[in-house]
Parts: sequence; C-alpha cells; structure tokens
Amino acid sequence: MPRCLCGCVPSLVRRGLLATGLAAAAFPARAQISADPALVDDIVTANRILYDQGVVDGFGHISARHDKDPGRYLLSRSMAPALVTAGDIMEFDLDSNPIDARGRAPYLERFIHGALYEARPDVNSVVHSHAEETLAFGITGTPLPPVIHLARAIGPTVPVWDIAEKFGDNTDLLVTNAEHGRDLAARLGQASVALMRGHGFAAVGAAIPDVVRLSVYLPVNARVLTTAMRFGEFKALAPGELSGRSGFDPGSASYWRAWEYWARRAGVGERLGEMP
Amino acid sequence: MPRCLCGCVPSLVRRGLLATGLAAAAFPARAQISADPALVDDIVTANRILYDQGVVDGFGHISARHDKDPGRYLLSRSMAPALVTAGDIMEFDLDSNPIDARGRAPYLERFIHGALYEARPDVNSVVHSHAEETLAFGITGTPLPPVIHLARAIGPTVPVWDIAEKFGDNTDLLVTNAEHGRDLAARLGQASVALMRGHGFAAVGAAIPDVVRLSVYLPVNARVLTTAMRFGEFKALAPGELSGRSGFDPGSASYWRAWEYWARRAGVGERLGEMP
Amino acid sequence: MPRCLCGCVPSLVRRGLLATGLAAAAFPARAQISADPALVDDIVTANRILYDQGVVDGFGHISARHDKDPGRYLLSRSMAPALVTAGDIMEFDLDSNPIDARGRAPYLERFIHGALYEARPDVNSVVHSHAEETLAFGITGTPLPPVIHLARAIGPTVPVWDIAEKFGDNTDLLVTNAEHGRDLAARLGQASVALMRGHGFAAVGAAIPDVVRLSVYLPVNARVLTTAMRFGEFKALAPGELSGRSGFDPGSASYWRAWEYWARRAGVGERLGEMP
Amino acid sequence: MPRCLCGCVPSLVRRGLLATGLAAAAFPARAQISADPALVDDIVTANRILYDQGVVDGFGHISARHDKDPGRYLLSRSMAPALVTAGDIMEFDLDSNPIDARGRAPYLERFIHGALYEARPDVNSVVHSHAEETLAFGITGTPLPPVIHLARAIGPTVPVWDIAEKFGDNTDLLVTNAEHGRDLAARLGQASVALMRGHGFAAVGAAIPDVVRLSVYLPVNARVLTTAMRFGEFKALAPGELSGRSGFDPGSASYWRAWEYWARRAGVGERLGEMP
Repeated sequence: MPRCLCGCVPSLVRRGLLATGLAAAAFPARAQISADPALVDDIVTANRILYDQGVVDGFGHISARHDKDPGRYLLSRSMAPALVTAGDIMEFDLDSNPIDARGRAPYLERFIHGALYEARPDVNSVVHSHAEETLAFGITGTPLPPVIHLARAIGPTVPVWDIAEKFGDNTDLLVTNAEHGRDLAARLGQASVALMRGHGFAAVGAAIPDVVRLSVYLPVNARVLTTAMRFGEFKALAPGELSGRSGFDPGSASYWRAWEYWARRAGVGERLGEMP
Repeated sequence: MPRCLCGCVPSLVRRGLLATGLAAAAFPARAQISADPALVDDIVTANRILYDQGVVDGFGHISARHDKDPGRYLLSRSMAPALVTAGDIMEFDLDSNPIDARGRAPYLERFIHGALYEARPDVNSVVHSHAEETLAFGITGTPLPPVIHLARAIGPTVPVWDIAEKFGDNTDLLVTNAEHGRDLAARLGQASVALMRGHGFAAVGAAIPDVVRLSVYLPVNARVLTTAMRFGEFKALAPGELSGRSGFDPGSASYWRAWEYWARRAGVGERLGEMP
Repeated sequence: MPRCLCGCVPSLVRRGLLATGLAAAAFPARAQISADPALVDDIVTANRILYDQGVVDGFGHISARHDKDPGRYLLSRSMAPALVTAGDIMEFDLDSNPIDARGRAPYLERFIHGALYEARPDVNSVVHSHAEETLAFGITGTPLPPVIHLARAIGPTVPVWDIAEKFGDNTDLLVTNAEHGRDLAARLGQASVALMRGHGFAAVGAAIPDVVRLSVYLPVNARVLTTAMRFGEFKALAPGELSGRSGFDPGSASYWRAWEYWARRAGVGERLGEMP
Repeated sequence: MPRCLCGCVPSLVRRGLLATGLAAAAFPARAQISADPALVDDIVTANRILYDQGVVDGFGHISARHDKDPGRYLLSRSMAPALVTAGDIMEFDLDSNPIDARGRAPYLERFIHGALYEARPDVNSVVHSHAEETLAFGITGTPLPPVIHLARAIGPTVPVWDIAEKFGDNTDLLVTNAEHGRDLAARLGQASVALMRGHGFAAVGAAIPDVVRLSVYLPVNARVLTTAMRFGEFKALAPGELSGRSGFDPGSASYWRAWEYWARRAGVGERLGEMP
C-alpha cells in the first residue's frame, strides 16, 4: 500500500480508517489459528510486499501451506492485499473449504491455491496476480522464457492456461470452483508459473520468499523480453543457468537482503519467520 | 491527488491551502442539495479515486444521476477532481443548466453528462477522461476490444466519436453545447464507452463503482492490447465472456473490495453509500 | 520536488537541509528586484510545477520577461528547479548579462532565454527542458505534430535545431553563448517549440501558464504519437483546431483550474499573480 | 529509498525498524576505517541517490577507491543500497578480500569492483546495477551509443560481457570470484560501461558523481534509443561531442547542482566531500 516510506499504514490505522483495524477487533487474531504465528506474519508481510512492488492491486493474493498440516493452507479473507492483517488470515482444506470462517468471506478464487497445493507437494506458497506485463503474453501465446538472472525461477517453460479450452466461452474467466483449479494445476504441471489467458498468472514456490521474488521479477522479465523481441534475436538463459545452486538461493545473504529490503520499503518492520 | 496514504488531503486542508476549504465556507454544503447526502459523498470519493488511479489529472470529471429526480444529475463545479468536496457538487437538468449555481462556475463540458443521461435511461453515472493510453486508439481508429477480464465492461465495441465529422475542422474539440453532447450520445449508442478523437473518452455505467472500474481498467486494457498487437494475433474476450453474472458484479465481495481499496488508497475514509 | 502532497518542501526547510534556505539568507529576496513580486512568485511556482510534473529534473529552467522592462528577463540562479525560491531569481538583459549577480552563479544556458526574448516580442515566458519523450523525435527528425487538444499550443510545426549544423561536431551540445542562442531562435522562427537535437526542447508562450501547459502536454503528445505511429495512419489536429479561441484560453475557468491544481500538487500554496 | 521528500529515512530510524540502525550499534562506524570520513559519507549518499533514482533496488552497489591507498576500495557490506549507513562501509584489497570484516558479510559480487580498480588506475568509483532498460541491449547485442548529451560519458562503445563465453552455460551469471571479475574487466577495456548479458551493467568513473551521473542517464539514453530505433535512422552523438571539456564537467556549477539535487531528493542532507 505505501508508495513511500512515510509510515502510511500506521497513519491510516491512527486515523481509524482501516476496515482491517475493525476486522482485527471483530475477528480475534492469529492466536486462534493452529499455524505458527511467524508464518501468519510472513503471509501478512508478503501481502504488503506484493502490493508495494506493484504485483497486486485491489486484486490478487498470496497463500502458504500450513506448517503443521500439509493438507491445509492459509490465505486472507476476501480483501485488498494492502490491507491484510494477521486477523484476516483464514485456514482452508485442499478442497478450499474454510476451516473456521467465523463470518469472514473467502476469496472467490481460493480454488487456485487449494488445487495447486493438492497437485504439488513440493509447493509451500502460491501467488495469484493480474500483473499487466504478463497479460499480452497470455493472450497471444508468445513464449515468456527467462532472460534475466533474477527471474531464473521462471524455469524452462511457462504454460498458458485458457479457461475456455475446457469450460467454454461463457465463463467470467475466474477460477471459482475446484474443477477450474484442478484444470489450471494440470496445465501448470511441474512448471513454476502458468499464465492465465486474459486474466493474469499463478506462481508457486518452495517458500514464501521464493514465490514473492518470482512474482516481482516475472513482470520485469516480461518487459525486458518485450523490448528485446522488438530488437530481433535475443539470448534467453541457458538450461544450465536455470538450475544448480545460486548466490540468490535460500540461506544466502542475497536471499534475505531482498526480503528485508522489500518488507521495509512496504512499511512492514517485522522479520521473516522460519519457513517450513 | 494523494500518491500515497500519508494523509495528503487532510494535511493540505490543515495548512489552509485548499481553495476547496475556502469553497466549503463560501458555498454551504450538501444540505442544500435535494439529493441523498450519501450519493454526494460517493461522487466526491469517486473524484478522488479517479485522480489517485491516474484516470483524471487537472481535467476530467465524474457525475451521477440524481437519486430522486432522473431528469437531473450531479457534477462538481469547474475544478480539478483531486480537490472536489461535497460543497462543490452542483445540480443540473438534462440540458445541463445549473439548478442553483450560487456563483459556482460549471464545467464547460458538462454537456457530455446531460446528453448521456438523456439518451440512456439505464445510465446512472458518467466519466469523462483524457486517459493517455486510449488516445492513440482514438486518432487511428484502431479497435479497442476488451482482452482482460477486469475490463469486460468495455463491451463488444468501442465507437470513436470525431467532433469534426459533424461540426467541422474549426472546433477546439471540446463538447461545449448540447448539440455536441447529443452527437456524442448518438455515436455511443448502447455501448459503454466512446473514444473522443484527439481528446479522451466518455464512459457510462449503471452505478458509480461500475463506471469507475471501467475507467480504471480501460487504460490497462489499452496498454495490454498495445503490446499484444506488436506480438501478432491476440485473443480478445469472447461474447459470452462479456455477459452473464460475474464474481465482480454488484453485491459480490470483489465488487466492494475494489472500491474500499481505491477509496482508502486515495485517502478517503468514508464508505460507499447506497446507490440508486 | 514533491512526489506527493505530504509537505515535502516545508519539511526539508524545517530540517535546515536546503541550500535555498541558506541562499535566501545570503541573498536578500525579491524586494531587491525591480519586477513585480507577484511575477517573481509565479516563476518560483512554475519551477516547482515543472519539477512535479516531470518536465525538469536537476536540469531545465523557466524564465519570464520583466514586467516593467521588456529588455530584461528573470531566471533563477544555477540550481535545480525543485529548490528555487524567490531569493534565487536573477535579472538579465537580453544579451544574458546578469544585472546584479551578487555572487550568484547564472545558468550556463541562459542564452536560450535572452535570445528568444530578443527575437520574439510576443513571448513573455520561456522553458528549457530535457523531457525524455521528445528526444527520440529530435534525433530522428520524426515530425511531432499536435494530436491531442491539450497540446494544441504546439502549433503546426515543430522545428528541430541541431547545434552541429552551424557550430560543428565538437560542441558539448549546450547553448553557452549568445551566438548559439540566436541560432536556436532563428530556427524556432514563429513556432512555439523547437526540439534541440540530443538535448531537449525550448518552448515559448505569451504568459507563464501557457508555456507551462505546453511543456506539460508536449511529452504526453509525444507518447501518444509514438504509440499511434506504431498502429499506422493517425489523424493530427487540423489547422482550424489549432487556432481560434478555446475553452482552455487565458481567462477561462479551465485555464486557471489547471494552474491551481498543478501548484497545489507541487506543494505551492500561493496564487498566480497577474501576468503582464 | 524515499520516493518523496517527506523524511522517510529519518522516520524509519525513529520507528526503530532499520537493521542499519542496529548495525551502526553493532559495528562501530567510520572512525574505524582509515579512509577520509567525507569519502565514506559520499559513498553512503551515492547509495541513497542510486536507489532514489531507480538505478538499484534490493540489488546493485557502488564503491570508491580508498583515498589513501590505491590498492584498496570501499564498499558496503551485503545489504540493500537504500539502507546503507557509514558503519556498513567495508574496506577491501584489490583481490576483494575484506580488510577488517568484523562479522559483516560482503557482497557476493564484490569481485566486479576489485577487478575494475585493478585493471583501471584511472577509475575511482564503480557501480553495478540491474537497470532494466539496459537489459534488452545486453541480451540482443544491439549497440547502445550515447544519443543524448547528459549521457556523453557512455563513450563511443559499450561492450557486452557474456559470462558464458569463457565460463560456460552452467553459471548463475553472477561475478563470484576474481576470475569472473578479471574477465569482465578485460571486456570493459578502456570503456566507461559494460553490459553484462542477462544481468545488468558495470560502470566506472574518475569520481563518485561521474559514475552516478552515468548510471542515472544510461537508462534514460537506453529508453530514448529504444524509441528512436522504432522511428528509423537516428543521429548518435558525434565523436567530438563525447570529448573535450563540458559545462557538465567537475568543478562546473551544473556538476554540483545535479549532485545536490539528487542528494536532497533522496533525503540525504550532507554535502559531497572532496573527491580524491
């Protein structure tokens, strides 16, 4: 939400304007959830980061797999990512049924998350975004290979999922049931990100910072590629450049440096908790 | 006006810099208007949102049909949308005559609004914007179909209105009388938005949030399409994807979520009132 | 300088960081200049507006002809436009000699201003900018006609001045003497703006708000045109659409509305004084 | 870090959120380094400027050669440039071994700096950046000549270094050892900047403000060139326009004006110290 570091979120809370402030009162916070409170905090931080980095606006979401029960995941109730606080994080089973809704309305498209956790045991965090830079690729089928090292997590191929292929031309393009979600998961296969035609993308990662980084640099990669295609022949990252350990891998100073920077830019002061 | 959530508008008011502060003193506020005060508030909020989202700058405006008299509409006096307050909202008949001007100068181009309410009983809110991304379409006649689901309200076709067709090559391109307005309305027909050659667009909706959303995502759709056209063949939304109910329709959580987010981002804390 | 309306300039001054604050102490302010203090204030406001609107950064400048002596003009000492205050405004003759420098270093390129006031008695304000969007036109000779109504002041043709034509290939492209300035003025002729190859533009107007508006919308016009050229044939404004009175002309509500909005956005609260 | 001038960094420090605040406590500051404290301050200021100008984000760095020992250089510990303070500046020999690490983790890619200081005695400051606008040039081999006068320091040619040429297709593209660094230095030769394929650029200068300016205007030059190439034939700066003294050279008012402006925009109030 903050565009600068001038304490935006705190000032809003101070002015009593935020529904989330009210929500925190109405819905007792993370203590009521069986997941690690640090994981809940990380999801909140990730929401703020994705907003501050322009990956989500009023729409889009990020979830994490439950740290104690791989058959569940954690996701905010239906609200803009910039406004999410710990008390807004809900728990779902992999069919995307809320465990203890307490009146909170879930995202209509939570099925994206449930289906991807179900299909991919290696995945612990999922992002859904409408990031504008990727949309032209999705509606034209233009390949979107990684061409910059910060986007190596894109992997060798980015499949495009078109809801119309299986569900016809009369949908509103939204992933509103488990069938939609599973069809998307099938198209994703073992890839890291799938474009959703006319809609956005779904990305997965082994941990929250991985999928956040992928979501931040996927649009950058798309912009660079869009320009490079105009110039003519371009060199994408080689297969060997996509694999193997990197100075940007978990545990490296660079890995934490980016997260710390993003969190502070977004006005969130808390440290990243331990990831599952 | 605010670029971030740091209380820009309040701080300006505090510093006594805003003409609108003065204006509020000079022109007694909404109590003097026969419309629902909540509707007046919504128009103010919509002005701030459109500014914050980059849809309007020093120019552009949004109006709403009067909730008690369909033969009237409500629109700010002539001022930048970022500065509008409740006391600036004026009432007009459908010929765009002010009902009770009390010295307030109306927008020169208010005839856009009057003519569209006259021609379209289904319309309860109108936006006029110079949004840059749409201008290249208007001066080239390049079709601007919806290609992303958030812009489905664009509808199947976007007509282009060229003032020169009927009024010749010696205008300043502005819609400064009822005849201009009616010619624009005729070109709009049953569409949701018409491009105005070399000038901007006029968009309509059943309610304020509908036309705000359309105005926010029309430029995004234009940017995505501009890139996609460079790539080659693209897939626009299918007719069935433009109609039918959607998770983004009025009453849905998503519908309100966006409005709440936009309003808070724009530094406006008030809730959306009931729409007619 | 301010990117938002959170009182940036005042807070900087409060923190005692601004050299301009020091400068105001060192150089007694406008009282010492023979021009109308309101005109000096308007030049300061225009500096802040041009910065806030992205027309100038650390470089670029705006001047006005002296209101009492047409053989003189007013321009800031050499400093970033965002930092200019009344005490920084210097007086020059049309050969660009400072009248009463009192130790203040003038802009190296003040000769742009002197030469244009000398050549064009109808001109009362001059802007020099490096605005990025115009540069590709200057280095390719691609015509830059007005295609949007807010940029009608561009006029029918925009000449390109290439310093190398007369002064050869060994300059640093800067207008550092009267001869350079006069050559630029000759190329401008009766036009409103000339592109300077590999450098930027010089624009002129009958009053400060005119040249500010032209400088704000010239880059917008350039971006729209850049996209339109990619689409194919485009319709530029017709000759008749460039002339005649307009709702945007001096004295109209729209004319003042834009200035008031720009000034407030830039954090400058003062009203525009009377123009010569 | 600051996007506006609202005192972002100070307010963050006040809220106790900055690790750098903690770091300053843990690692006694510049008093412990043998370099001129003013030089250390300039490196800190340059970090903030490069962030504020969008040249670096969570990644990228700037160093300076030690003012008393040409066989050493100064560079922050591994952290986001926006957060760097004096206590974070470390000293390295030209093999990029830290002199007195005191537990501070160095940047993985510090070898860029060591190798360039080793190869180029004329160089006193080095920037490494991932600036997006340059990346399409690096992956296509499209020439990136200077076309605007503010980017004349680019020089006549910009070599492209592809790590794969010498080190094969299985790297992560990072410059993680002295061999990588020396290969990059060899490709740079006597140029001012080298593109790094799929990664970013490395730029050098005789002093900190020189390489900062080059790094700020290289992306602008890339954007202008990208547009100009679409238009067709363009005129690059002539060889004579790249050499000779300029009004923008060290010691000129313009030279200091830009630095002062950048520093204040970035919320850094300190003056530039004397450069070696």
